[in-house]
Amino acid sequence: MVKIVECVPNFSEGRNKKTIDAIYNTIKKHKEVELLDFTPDADHNRTDVTFVGSPERVKAVAMDIALKCVELIDMNKHKGEHPRMGAIDVVPFIPVSDVTMDECVSLANDFAKDFSKKTNVPCFLYEEAAKREDRKNLADVRRGEFEGLKEEIGKNPDKMPDYGPNKIHPTAGATAVGARFFLIAYNVNLGTDNIDIAKNIAKVVRHSSGGFRFVKAMGFEIKERKIVQVSMNLVNYQKSSIFRVFETIKNEAERYGVPVIGSEIVGLIPLEALTDVTDYYLRLENFKRDQVLEKKLLDSKK
Amino acid sequence: MVKIVECVPNFSEGRNKKTIDAIYNTIKKHKEVELLDFTPDADHNRTDVTFVGSPERVKAVAMDIALKCVELIDMNKHKGEHPRMGAIDVVPFIPVSDVTMDECVSLANDFAKDFSKKTNVPCFLYEEAAKREDRKNLADVRRGEFEGLKEEIGKNPDKMPDYGPNKIHPTAGATAVGARFFLIAYNVNLGTDNIDIAKNIAKVVRHSSGGFRFVKAMGFEIKERKIVQVSMNLVNYQKSSIFRVFETIKNEAERYGVPVIGSEIVGLIPLEALTDVTDYYLRLENFKRDQVLEKKLLDSKK
Repeated sequence: MVKIVECVPNFSEGRNKKTIDAIYNTIKKHKEVELLDFTPDADHNRTDVTFVGSPERVKAVAMDIALKCVELIDMNKHKGEHPRMGAIDVVPFIPVSDVTMDECVSLANDFAKDFSKKTNVPCFLYEEAAKREDRKNLADVRRGEFEGLKEEIGKNPDKMPDYGPNKIHPTAGATAVGARFFLIAYNVNLGTDNIDIAKNIAKVVRHSSGGFRFVKAMGFEIKERKIVQVSMNLVNYQKSSIFRVFETIKNEAERYGVPVIGSEIVGLIPLEALTDVTDYYLRLENFKRDQVLEKKLLDSKK
Repeated sequence: MVKIVECVPNFSEGRNKKTIDAIYNTIKKHKEVELLDFTPDADHNRTDVTFVGSPERVKAVAMDIALKCVELIDMNKHKGEHPRMGAIDVVPFIPVSDVTMDECVSLANDFAKDFSKKTNVPCFLYEEAAKREDRKNLADVRRGEFEGLKEEIGKNPDKMPDYGPNKIHPTAGATAVGARFFLIAYNVNLGTDNIDIAKNIAKVVRHSSGGFRFVKAMGFEIKERKIVQVSMNLVNYQKSSIFRVFETIKNEAERYGVPVIGSEIVGLIPLEALTDVTDYYLRLENFKRDQVLEKKLLDSKK
């Protein structure tokens, strides 16, 4: 079995080509992890990076990226639309295959401890790695951003970091380090142009209004196709399953006499989410993921 | 994208440990293919081997195995229950991922040509690689077995090999070389102990009695669970889909007031068969297999 962890660090530079290239090259020199995405965003002045590999390798590469960001980015000069508090702003670790959430929480702790020791950048643990209830939500951790935190840290006890000194790093700010579940972006298309139906169904399935615990949902119009869509983030596909969400939407749509005409998985999905779907609909007994030939091959190349 | 071909050679030795070990070691020294199964059967006096890899590597390793079999096995001394006509009895090539059937037919031709040239073992092409209608079915090709073929070859024009000399190899006999689709062993369990229901449903879904083109099926009792089972081989899951067979059985069972209580995939299944199931039930639009994170990783390790 091959352990796979995903890491999605975001750093606070989306415009300066020289800085972006230097960080890109830092990642690309590591052949032992696989870079899946690297998207600089000039409006946000921020870059999202996605890479996967074994837990140890992922942690080591995340460290290299973080050190390069501290070296090259000065938050005093940073402007951008997206909330941010540090040069290396967030570092989440995500279990993908044969890794537990506990292992990712440990990775986050080890990373934050080592990184803050090396750089004196204070680190805040969030989501599954959070040590305090009020740090579970990344938006809460980041509230006030670099400029606000600079004033509050060392004075407000709620702003005491989990690792590192109780003061801001003069150029690199602070970093949020976390562990979270794999997010599946999933949309269901309805054969109607009535946006109210999509909005009502979104309400039914999303957590905030009484639906599934790990579903965020909104209703949208897709004007060029004259249809509407329930657009979702499934933030824990193990507990709020894709097939159960799909079946619920199908039943709700039926109540309006509207058909589900299709659904879309946007971006990547872990094999486990697919085997869960197959398991459910075919009522499989004792199926194991290593019965999938490609998975067996991947494991053998560990 | 990584091209994956499976090869399932069967050789005519299932008892002599020295011979079996020598052939096993021939395979294991090749790190560039992955051995998935190696099962000597003493009753059949025959061993089934399953390995996967890139088309070129798989062909090269199949050749090494075949040459070792010709060197070590004497068909004049071979006895066993299973029909056979050669030391290396069958060599089928099976597309698994990003490989077409045409490519596997070419592999079978290249293999048969090279192998018969090296060894003077006559080769017969079967199933998708067959050049004559009467050689599509392996049982027809192998009829008469080693002993019968020895008498007929060179006299009966229907026994003219596709490659190699028109005479039997004195010790290694002849070899059937083929290309076929991946076979999925799939069983559906019914919540009844009435074997007639399983037998009737097996009749409905199997090709031989009017069912799906690429399904073989039988009804069985599972006494220890007091249930019955429709036991199947899906010999082309792309054309006779696992989900369509499952849904048909579910509908037929309903007609008897019997529930489908589960189903089983026995052994390995290609990722494509799983993504097909997900695609069908979730009505996916534009889903591609390389959206599966593990598949993307496997491709990157090509």
